[in-house]
Amino acid sequence: MKSYLEMTKDELTAEIAVLKKEYKRFQNLELHLDMSRGKPSQEQLDLSMGMMDVLDSNSDLTCDDGTDCRNYGQLTGIDEARVLLGDMMENNPNDIIIYGNSSLNVMYDTISRCYTHGVLGSTPWCKLDTVKFLCPVPGYDRHFAITEYFGIEMIPVPMTSTGPDMDMVEKLVAEDASIKGIWCVPKYSNPQGYSYSDETVRRFARLKPAAKDFRIFWDNAYGMHHLYDDHQDYLIEILAECKRAGNPDLVYKFASTSKITFPGSGIAALATSPNNMEDIKRQLKNQTIGHDKVNQLRHVRFFGDIHGMVEHMRKHADIIRPKFELVISTLETNLGELGIGSWTKPLGGYFICFDSLPGCAKAIVARAKKAGVIMTKAGATWPHGLDPNDTNIRIAPTYPSLSELKTAAELFTLCVKLVSAEHLLEQMKESEA
Amino acid sequence: MKSYLEMTKDELTAEIAVLKKEYKRFQNLELHLDMSRGKPSQEQLDLSMGMMDVLDSNSDLTCDDGTDCRNYGQLTGIDEARVLLGDMMENNPNDIIIYGNSSLNVMYDTISRCYTHGVLGSTPWCKLDTVKFLCPVPGYDRHFAITEYFGIEMIPVPMTSTGPDMDMVEKLVAEDASIKGIWCVPKYSNPQGYSYSDETVRRFARLKPAAKDFRIFWDNAYGMHHLYDDHQDYLIEILAECKRAGNPDLVYKFASTSKITFPGSGIAALATSPNNMEDIKRQLKNQTIGHDKVNQLRHVRFFGDIHGMVEHMRKHADIIRPKFELVISTLETNLGELGIGSWTKPLGGYFICFDSLPGCAKAIVARAKKAGVIMTKAGATWPHGLDPNDTNIRIAPTYPSLSELKTAAELFTLCVKLVSAEHLLEQMKESEA
Repeated sequence: MKSYLEMTKDELTAEIAVLKKEYKRFQNLELHLDMSRGKPSQEQLDLSMGMMDVLDSNSDLTCDDGTDCRNYGQLTGIDEARVLLGDMMENNPNDIIIYGNSSLNVMYDTISRCYTHGVLGSTPWCKLDTVKFLCPVPGYDRHFAITEYFGIEMIPVPMTSTGPDMDMVEKLVAEDASIKGIWCVPKYSNPQGYSYSDETVRRFARLKPAAKDFRIFWDNAYGMHHLYDDHQDYLIEILAECKRAGNPDLVYKFASTSKITFPGSGIAALATSPNNMEDIKRQLKNQTIGHDKVNQLRHVRFFGDIHGMVEHMRKHADIIRPKFELVISTLETNLGELGIGSWTKPLGGYFICFDSLPGCAKAIVARAKKAGVIMTKAGATWPHGLDPNDTNIRIAPTYPSLSELKTAAELFTLCVKLVSAEHLLEQMKESEA
Repeated sequence: MKSYLEMTKDELTAEIAVLKKEYKRFQNLELHLDMSRGKPSQEQLDLSMGMMDVLDSNSDLTCDDGTDCRNYGQLTGIDEARVLLGDMMENNPNDIIIYGNSSLNVMYDTISRCYTHGVLGSTPWCKLDTVKFLCPVPGYDRHFAITEYFGIEMIPVPMTSTGPDMDMVEKLVAEDASIKGIWCVPKYSNPQGYSYSDETVRRFARLKPAAKDFRIFWDNAYGMHHLYDDHQDYLIEILAECKRAGNPDLVYKFASTSKITFPGSGIAALATSPNNMEDIKRQLKNQTIGHDKVNQLRHVRFFGDIHGMVEHMRKHADIIRPKFELVISTLETNLGELGIGSWTKPLGGYFICFDSLPGCAKAIVARAKKAGVIMTKAGATWPHGLDPNDTNIRIAPTYPSLSELKTAAELFTLCVKLVSAEHLLEQMKESEA
């Protein structure tokens, strides 16, 4: 197939006519498909149904240290859950606090605490005129929503296939003491599926921020989410690297079992240095007497240990992998030679990232929606939902079934073609005028 | 027995000698008993073990509206949990948000949100020079800890057997726009077990606060916690009364199942007006994708409906009632005629409140501790832990077994006698000197 970029006006016009007919055919299917959010499919959720059996009315709900999980207590979580999540996060169990469902909640609470009470005795951010965050783009919309909600100014930093542009990160944090943090999804990033290179992690651990209360918000949401057993990304563990670099307090690290067991009933965790931990506990003891310990115990008894969790993640991968491969092969087949888009081919995580011709993303997503396929809102991957070039689209292939996904991917590529062809034709007409 | 207040110096000296011998006998028992916190006993926790059976790997975890409870979604909780907690709280399910474990967490988050983002568009409390809260005393230490943590100035308001001194409350909130809230435990209050009278609730609903962002923090923690089936306190429902009074947005109301099912794995809820609800949702959507829905479903399937919960609470009452009665009868038998203390006789809740002679509470608690019985720290029932008269002691009778409690109550009354006698003798000596 000829690249659209090389087509004449007539060729584009003819192509558009064909595409419109095809689009009409899709509309007649009355589809209702959702590729908008990184949600596990029902088949994936079924993998964890055994978790509903590990505790029953005959179970002893006492944990290793003798605490009755049913009663009050254990502010930072039960020991065995800290061990399991410690193994999952590659951190010392003592450096871990277990929370309730959703690591987003933990991240929100962390920002909120910095805002109301500062970091290790620093001025609370709410008392400062300006607080800024670095936001690698494209990135995760819910991260940006938190910082936006707290009135924090967001500075986009370009992502590369090895992580954020570290020259820019180093320069900005060294120069500007109002920059207090950076959002990172270091492994199988949202939405590109990139993993930070060793050099990137090393440079993060050696940042010299002007602000003493600068923290890296390290959301390792997909640390366990490999698609290929024999072809995985490995990440240098950031807390250990920060300690080695003499910057032990630089990082808050987040993770959860949301996409391991149930998004609707998982456990979340934060890992950080002993200093930060004490700082957080001073707040946490006022916020709660303790998070859900029975669910912590349920997770521990279900997995047994980290090996059990790894085996479990292999089953997730077996379900997800064909979906990623289907979308990527559809993109390659339908768009490979057309010059109207590029996309990532991640080895893990929950997303594929698509970049259209400039100025086309919104229109593509709108077209797909009109034919019954919901994509993540174009622009969502940028702070305030504003993608300056209108190119970025996040594809979430996990939730639909394979057959639904096939239809959705076909429609998506059709919309890319149609919108791109129309866009190119429009540009030609404009340049003629 | 003669009142200590009428004893001569010699009589007190002789009495002290007898009491010290008795105290020594208790010390030799090497007790390790805890009456410090309002914790359910193991027997009470066992009542809810059936909750571990209602879901298993064959269960359909889909809720009424078709949502898969295992997956993301349902920011404000699943409908059937809102109905159940609505019945429990006597509120419209639409006015309810279900949270995770612990209503303390919900209260903290509510204060935190007011602090960072204000109330319905008002200036965030963090931007104000002074924020004050009214604190009925004696009250709940964890309430005071939250307001203290946020640097909120706490103004003690005396509790009476019908609720806080409403003349004082009305006057203060009308005069001072920096007063932004009041902590209330309206039914079977912590620590006295008092329930607000109809007049008190009506006057609360008709408050005319100078501050538009003044809110009543109505912690109905013990709404279901009757000791006597045929002798219950009834409370006018505050949201309905506020609506009738033309003050619909005046209240945030809190409750949880912590002392109904498991403190370590319950569900909490907030009830408030539609305006407040929208305000809260604007924040909540940034904080989480949703709280634990599987545990919501578990609670709903366990209780069936509010009648099931009421029946369940009767079983709690059967376990707790003898403990309250034992403590109260021990107080009456051992201290009844001595003039050295008074106590409440609640019809529900988790506490009995004891008032010693002025200046004796700390010493009594310290004596009990030295003989192996932990009471709530004296002073804990006042803001900053400072009881100006040093009289108030909270007794939490639920956690120990009946036989342990018998020993603990005997020891407690012994400590009251010993410390009071020593105190009175000291006073005589001082007045002679």
